Amino acid sequence: MNANEAARSVRVTVWNENIHETRGDELVARIYPDGIHGAIAGGLTDLLGADADIRVALMSQPENGLPQYVVDETDVLLWWGHIGHDQVSDEVVDRVQAAVHAGMGILVLHSGHFSKIFKRLMGSSCSLKWRNDGERELVWTVAPTHPIAEGVPSPILIPEQEMYGEYFDIPTPDETVFLSTFAGGEVFRSGVTYTRGLGKVFYFSPGDQDFPVYHHADIHRVLANAVRWAAPVAPRRQLTADQHPLGWFAA
Amino acid sequence: MNANEAARSVRVTVWNENIHETRGDELVARIYPDGIHGAIAGGLTDLLGADADIRVALMSQPENGLPQYVVDETDVLLWWGHIGHDQVSDEVVDRVQAAVHAGMGILVLHSGHFSKIFKRLMGSSCSLKWRNDGERELVWTVAPTHPIAEGVPSPILIPEQEMYGEYFDIPTPDETVFLSTFAGGEVFRSGVTYTRGLGKVFYFSPGDQDFPVYHHADIHRVLANAVRWAAPVAPRRQLTADQHPLGWFAA
Amino acid sequence: MNANEAARSVRVTVWNENIHETRGDELVARIYPDGIHGAIAGGLTDLLGADADIRVALMSQPENGLPQYVVDETDVLLWWGHIGHDQVSDEVVDRVQAAVHAGMGILVLHSGHFSKIFKRLMGSSCSLKWRNDGERELVWTVAPTHPIAEGVPSPILIPEQEMYGEYFDIPTPDETVFLSTFAGGEVFRSGVTYTRGLGKVFYFSPGDQDFPVYHHADIHRVLANAVRWAAPVAPRRQLTADQHPLGWFAA
Amino acid sequence: MNANEAARSVRVTVWNENIHETRGDELVARIYPDGIHGAIAGGLTDLLGADADIRVALMSQPENGLPQYVVDETDVLLWWGHIGHDQVSDEVVDRVQAAVHAGMGILVLHSGHFSKIFKRLMGSSCSLKWRNDGERELVWTVAPTHPIAEGVPSPILIPEQEMYGEYFDIPTPDETVFLSTFAGGEVFRSGVTYTRGLGKVFYFSPGDQDFPVYHHADIHRVLANAVRWAAPVAPRRQLTADQHPLGWFAA
Repeated sequence: MNANEAARSVRVTVWNENIHETRGDELVARIYPDGIHGAIAGGLTDLLGADADIRVALMSQPENGLPQYVVDETDVLLWWGHIGHDQVSDEVVDRVQAAVHAGMGILVLHSGHFSKIFKRLMGSSCSLKWRNDGERELVWTVAPTHPIAEGVPSPILIPEQEMYGEYFDIPTPDETVFLSTFAGGEVFRSGVTYTRGLGKVFYFSPGDQDFPVYHHADIHRVLANAVRWAAPVAPRRQLTADQHPLGWFAA
Repeated sequence: MNANEAARSVRVTVWNENIHETRGDELVARIYPDGIHGAIAGGLTDLLGADADIRVALMSQPENGLPQYVVDETDVLLWWGHIGHDQVSDEVVDRVQAAVHAGMGILVLHSGHFSKIFKRLMGSSCSLKWRNDGERELVWTVAPTHPIAEGVPSPILIPEQEMYGEYFDIPTPDETVFLSTFAGGEVFRSGVTYTRGLGKVFYFSPGDQDFPVYHHADIHRVLANAVRWAAPVAPRRQLTADQHPLGWFAA
Repeated sequence: MNANEAARSVRVTVWNENIHETRGDELVARIYPDGIHGAIAGGLTDLLGADADIRVALMSQPENGLPQYVVDETDVLLWWGHIGHDQVSDEVVDRVQAAVHAGMGILVLHSGHFSKIFKRLMGSSCSLKWRNDGERELVWTVAPTHPIAEGVPSPILIPEQEMYGEYFDIPTPDETVFLSTFAGGEVFRSGVTYTRGLGKVFYFSPGDQDFPVYHHADIHRVLANAVRWAAPVAPRRQLTADQHPLGWFAA
Repeated sequence: MNANEAARSVRVTVWNENIHETRGDELVARIYPDGIHGAIAGGLTDLLGADADIRVALMSQPENGLPQYVVDETDVLLWWGHIGHDQVSDEVVDRVQAAVHAGMGILVLHSGHFSKIFKRLMGSSCSLKWRNDGERELVWTVAPTHPIAEGVPSPILIPEQEMYGEYFDIPTPDETVFLSTFAGGEVFRSGVTYTRGLGKVFYFSPGDQDFPVYHHADIHRVLANAVRWAAPVAPRRQLTADQHPLGWFAA
C-alpha cells in the first residue's frame, strides 16, 4: 500500500431492501430503529472513520437506489435483501455485475444468498437449510492470517441467531475464512471469498432482521475488515495489442 | 465405481450452433464435412464405444435442439458455439443451467467461452485475447493424476491453431488440468474444471472451425476422458428435515 | 476406468502402531479385540470384497512393518498412530514419502495428524485442539459429488467421540469433503484431500481407540470410498528430453 | 492496515548461498559484482525505502548466516540457493521452518525450488524440467488483482533466461499469480503462493546466476510487492482453553 492509497477513503454504499423495517414489524423496529443499513453504516463509521466515505441506498429509491452514478462512485457495495429480491430490476443487477467485473468489491450478507446479484455472480443455486429458533451460533476462524479475520476472536459468539446449514450450494470458495456451528449441530461455511473479474466478493452469513447481530462488535469488525479487503486495487498494466509484435484481439 | 455404474452407458449430447458449416464457408466445409459435431461425436464413439450413447443437437432445431426431454435424457452435454450465441433463447439457457445444478455434466469448448450458458455458470465476463494466425499450440498437463489427463501426452502438439491468451477472465478454477502455450509466446489456462450445484463443468479451449483440431486423436482422448469425468454420480443421501430432531427449511 | 483397471484389485496395507491394544488397556481391548487395524481391515473387506487385496502391517514388526517390498506392493496405505509416532524410523518415513510421490495413495486417520509422515507431507505443524469427553460428532458432507462421499449420509452421526477442533494447522486442502461439529460447539475440517507428487492424500479425523468408531458402517463406507479414490492411476506419458527438439534436463 | 502497521518497517533478510559469486566464475562476477543478494537487496531498498529494514545473510557465515537471533528479527526471508543446498544444516532448516509456522514470510527464488526448506514446506519432490539456452521468458499475470502483481506489466519480458518447465512437482498452489512461457514452447507456474502455519510462502522462478534477471526493474517490483504481501500480520486472538466452558487441550 503506497501513500496515495492509504490517503484515499474507500467509498462504501450500504444497500438494503428495507422492507422488514418499514412494514410495522415491532420486533424488527425495536432491534433496528435506524434500519439494518443504519446499524451496519454506524458500525463501519465507528471502525473505519475517515478511511471510509459511507452512504446508504434503499430499494425504494429510484432505480432501486443504485443509479449508474451511485454505482460509479462506489468502491465497495454491501447488500442486504431477503423478501424483496424479485423487486430489484434486472437492469440494476446488470449494472452491479458489470461494476464488480470492473473492480468494485461486494459484500453479500445473510439472506442475500438468494439475491439476484449473488446468484448471478456464483452461477449456482445458492440454496441452503435454515431454521429460525434463535439458537447459539459460533463463528470459527479457519484462515487465521486472512485480513478479514484480523482482530476477530475465534469463535465469535452470537447468542441467538437463525440457523443456516449445509449443504450450501455455492462454488468452491477461493478462501474459506469462517465456519459456523449452531446449537442444533449444523455447520455452515459462513465467510467465503471469491473473485469475479477484477472485483472481490465476500459472502458473510451472520445477520438477521430478528436478532441484533448487526449491533455485535465482532460482526462490525468483520465487515470493516472486509470493506478494506474488497476495495479495488489500482488497475494492472497489461500489454496492449499494439505493444505486441503480433497483436491480438479481445473477445 | 460399482458394477451397476460400470454397466450404464453415459448419455452424451453434442450440441453445435452449426453455422460455419452451413453457410458456404469452403474451408470449414472441407475440414468438417460432417460438421464440428460430427467430428466430435465420431471421436467419442471411437473411444467410448458402448460406454456412451451419443446424440447430436443443433441450434436450428426446435427449441435450439434442446427441448426439455433431450436435456432430461442427457448425462453430459458438449457445447460448441461461436457466432450464434445470441440466437440461443434464454429459456433454453435456463433449462441447461438447471440441469447442470441437478447433476448434468457440461463440457464447454473453445469459443463457447462466450456462450450464454458459460457466462451464466461462471458469473464473470469470460473475455480473453485471441489472434488467428494458425500458429502452433502446445497443451501441457499440470495435473498429471487428473482423470481428464489419462493417456494424454504432455504436451499435446497442435500444429496450427487460433491463439487464445491470458488474461482469461474466469473464476479461480477448482482444478487447472492443462496450460497451453502458443508460438507467439502467449499462455492460456486451456483445461479447467468447476462444480456448479451437483454438475461438473470442464472448459477446454483447443478447437476451432478453421483448423482440424477436432480430428486430433489426443483431443478426442481429452474429450472422452472428460465425458467420463463429468458424468453425474448417484445423488447423495442427505438427512431430511423430518429426520432431524429440530427440523429445518430449505431456502 | 477401463476394463483392465476395473479388473485389478487395489492392494491395501492397513498400518497400525498397535500400542493401545497390546498394553493391557481393557477398554480398548474390549472395543477392538482384533486391534484397530482388524476393525478397519474387516470393514474394507466387507465393502470392497475382491476389489481389494488387504494386508495389515504393525509397528512392532521388522522395519516398522513397512520394509521396501511391502511398500512396493501397496497401492493405498492407511495409517493409524497415536502415542508411538516417534518410534517410526526416519528411514521408513522417507520410504513412505517417496512411495507417495511415486503414486501410492495414503489415508491418514485421526491421531495420525501428528505422525511423522503426515507432517512431512503437509509441511505445517498439523496441531489442533482436542477434548476427550465422549461427545456427539456430526460429520457433514460439503462436497456432495466427491467420490469419497458416495453413499454416505449427511451427517454421519457418531454418538460418542473425542473432539478435534479448529484451528487445525494444515495447508489449504485441495478439496474439503467433510466438516464435523461437536456437542461442545466446535468445528473441524474432518475430511480433506491433497496431492503430493503423483500420490493422493486423504486425512479423515473420525476414529479413536476409546470409541467404536471403526465399527461404524458409515465410517467403513468413507474409508472404502477413499481407498478407491486414492488408488494410483496409470502413469501419464510425458514428452521425454530426446523427443523435444531442444531437449532438457530434470532437476 | 492501521497506522501502527503502516509505520513499522518490514524486517527483511536476503539469504544467499553465495557460491557462484565467490569461486571465480567470471560471468557471474561480471553480472553480480555485489552478489545476487546485493542485487536483490539493492532493488528492494530502491522500492521499499523506509518501509523495509534489509539485511543480508550468507551461507558461509556462522550457523549458515541464520542464527536464532537473526531469524527472530526477520519478518520476511528471501532464499537463493543452487549448488549448496546440502550445506545448509538440518538444524537451521528446522529453525526456519518453525519461524514460518509462527508467521515469518518466506520468498523462495529460482533454484531454491530444490532447497531443503522449500521441500520441507511443500512435502513434494519439487522437481522440474530445465534447459540453459538463454532463451526469452515471458511472465504473464493470471491473478490481476493480487497484491504481488501490483504495478507489474503482463507480460514481463526477460530477454535471456534459463528455462524452467512443467511438470513442476508442487502441491496445488493457494494462488497462481504468474505463468511463464519460454521461446522453446514450455510453460511454468512461475509465481505461486502457499500458507504454512501462520507464514506466507511465495515461490518465484525468474532469476539465475548467469543472467541479469535480478537487475530487472519488473522483477524488483514483484519481489518488493511480495515482501509486503508476506509480512506477518498481527497474531489472531483465539479463545483460550480456560475461556471455553468445556476447556480443551492442544495437540
